[in-house]
Amino acid sequence: MRNSSRSEVDPFIVMDVMQAAARAEAAGRHIIHMEVGQPGTGAPKGAAAALTTAMDQGSLGYTVALGIPELRARVARMYGEWYNVDLDPNRVVITSGSSGAFILAFTALFDSGDRVGIGAPGYPSYRQILGALGMVPVDLPTAAENRYQPVPADFANMDLRGLMVASPANPTGTMLDRPALSALIGACHETGASFISDEIYHGVEYEKKAVTALEVTDECYVINSFSKYFSMTGWRVGWMVVPEDQVRVVERIAQNMFICAPHASQVAALAAMDCDDELQANMDVYRANRALMLDGLPKAGFDRIAPPDGAFYVYADVSEITQDSRALAADILEKAGVAVTPGLDFDPLRGHTTLRFSYARSTADIRDGLERLSAYMKTR
Amino acid sequence: MRNSSRSEVDPFIVMDVMQAAARAEAAGRHIIHMEVGQPGTGAPKGAAAALTTAMDQGSLGYTVALGIPELRARVARMYGEWYNVDLDPNRVVITSGSSGAFILAFTALFDSGDRVGIGAPGYPSYRQILGALGMVPVDLPTAAENRYQPVPADFANMDLRGLMVASPANPTGTMLDRPALSALIGACHETGASFISDEIYHGVEYEKKAVTALEVTDECYVINSFSKYFSMTGWRVGWMVVPEDQVRVVERIAQNMFICAPHASQVAALAAMDCDDELQANMDVYRANRALMLDGLPKAGFDRIAPPDGAFYVYADVSEITQDSRALAADILEKAGVAVTPGLDFDPLRGHTTLRFSYARSTADIRDGLERLSAYMKTR
Repeated sequence: MRNSSRSEVDPFIVMDVMQAAARAEAAGRHIIHMEVGQPGTGAPKGAAAALTTAMDQGSLGYTVALGIPELRARVARMYGEWYNVDLDPNRVVITSGSSGAFILAFTALFDSGDRVGIGAPGYPSYRQILGALGMVPVDLPTAAENRYQPVPADFANMDLRGLMVASPANPTGTMLDRPALSALIGACHETGASFISDEIYHGVEYEKKAVTALEVTDECYVINSFSKYFSMTGWRVGWMVVPEDQVRVVERIAQNMFICAPHASQVAALAAMDCDDELQANMDVYRANRALMLDGLPKAGFDRIAPPDGAFYVYADVSEITQDSRALAADILEKAGVAVTPGLDFDPLRGHTTLRFSYARSTADIRDGLERLSAYMKTR
Repeated sequence: MRNSSRSEVDPFIVMDVMQAAARAEAAGRHIIHMEVGQPGTGAPKGAAAALTTAMDQGSLGYTVALGIPELRARVARMYGEWYNVDLDPNRVVITSGSSGAFILAFTALFDSGDRVGIGAPGYPSYRQILGALGMVPVDLPTAAENRYQPVPADFANMDLRGLMVASPANPTGTMLDRPALSALIGACHETGASFISDEIYHGVEYEKKAVTALEVTDECYVINSFSKYFSMTGWRVGWMVVPEDQVRVVERIAQNMFICAPHASQVAALAAMDCDDELQANMDVYRANRALMLDGLPKAGFDRIAPPDGAFYVYADVSEITQDSRALAADILEKAGVAVTPGLDFDPLRGHTTLRFSYARSTADIRDGLERLSAYMKTR
């Protein structure tokens, strides 16, 4: 059957690592998973309990396209609590994960052939979704001295219709502070480019609170999700905050493309927002893991890293060790039994000299993994 | 903020009816809902029980993009049981509802500007999703003598890249029998157009079993969902069967655009497939409702209807009563307290003279609604 050209989506290179890890485990080896991008924990217990009750009481049919009003109101309230931002609940759109939010945002804002800037390294699906929708992703190679975040000079005169940033970022964990975010937003507003802020790792931050784009402007799309801080990856529920004049536009697209986000997941998410103790206990684990990583990785020999402000990743420049991160990742898996992600998924141009280490799993695993990495590097 | 031209999605006209109905209910009136397109029942009890158990036992993180292997295998087995079709589970893709399947199918097959035929009347979101993806939906006005289904002559020499059909159809409930389906598929294969079969109402059929396109050919995309027969609308889980050479293409798109269908919904759906007793009890209700409708609607004066083979809708030609179905629906709501859907959502060209009646709710409601409609028509 003939396929569209927009269907030519790159495979995830990490899949090779994951499949090799699965084969090793099937053969009886013990593998430490530092390649995964999701919490090892499930949804908070309160979320599951709320859903069990809801299943007893009602039929969980379609919700309205913008989401359960109580959840939209609760998300809006969170912006007051977390950022001291007064947010109208009518501007909150509940989505089928951040994935659904990307599709809605790109559809609402961009046409076929429109150029949209994304930082490199960055979340690989930005590029692939834009391409799958017939738009043109434009990689903006970021500089280590800018902590791998774009700056206005990176896209001056590039004729972009939009710019997408993430803070804290995947794969680096670095954040944009308020001046940096303001500069990017200002540059976009000057050229008429739409600004989209992926804030999926907000809440998973260590030394200071992440800044939301809504502290700077209302003229932007903000995307977030219950997958990371709220530990609900598989539930496919997130949200998007849009300018007031965009609500109807997004609603109509959502009605047709999604009907609604999963009702059960919306119920669970609403309850999860009040499970602070359990969520903070998860954060304590990430915090301990991060401290181990920032100490253990340099000692092992991975010393060119940008200290992560948030998320649960460390991105390492391994150019002094290899020019082939894919082969290095395969070798680490084979010899050390640690699965890590080659940088090529995040940065097609420069990722052959980088690795991403995730510390989302248990502290015991991180400790074990660091010991293995250290032993591995000594044998090189 | 500047929007894309592809974001110009038509509003659902039925929304006016639903909002007016909600206002009437808020003012204390009792309204019969014949406008809704979803079962009044929730997920089968066995589905909820399975999910409660799963929430106790595991973390319900991301599943692989193609879906839980057990669910893919169970869906494949169903094709043996329902149609005597031997289906490789590897060809089954679990999706975020049929909505997610449409996005995947259209992305895999069509590029910006490609023309895709859809029958009119038909499900409004086909048109809107195609437009939102930058493709060109081509309405094929169908004939009453073809029971509102397209035939090859309707799209001869129209330069279509694809054809999308639904059987049983929304809003008419009519089905394509095997010769009719074979003729459409043959015409598509001759011109190189991709054939997509929306089979979301399979299982909700009355006099004979619906025919799946997979009985005719493997060279097609088949889309289905747990929303209708399995009564799981709000769960956003469905599936798609694709040719073997399409699995990898669709997998890569799904990994990036959706990551996976909701894990909790996949668990519930797997259990739902073994809840025959409860699902057949739902069917008994639809069957009784349908009999009441086919008797009561003509008696009330809505006598130009295509007897529905499946789904839970009756589509009526009301051209002898009105040239403004929107005004008629508003009048029926106001005077009779029955919410019905004007045909304009399904057929922008000819829907000003049609109405869709849904009989998905309780038999008591249907009885009451028919009495109200009968009394209303006597006063006209």
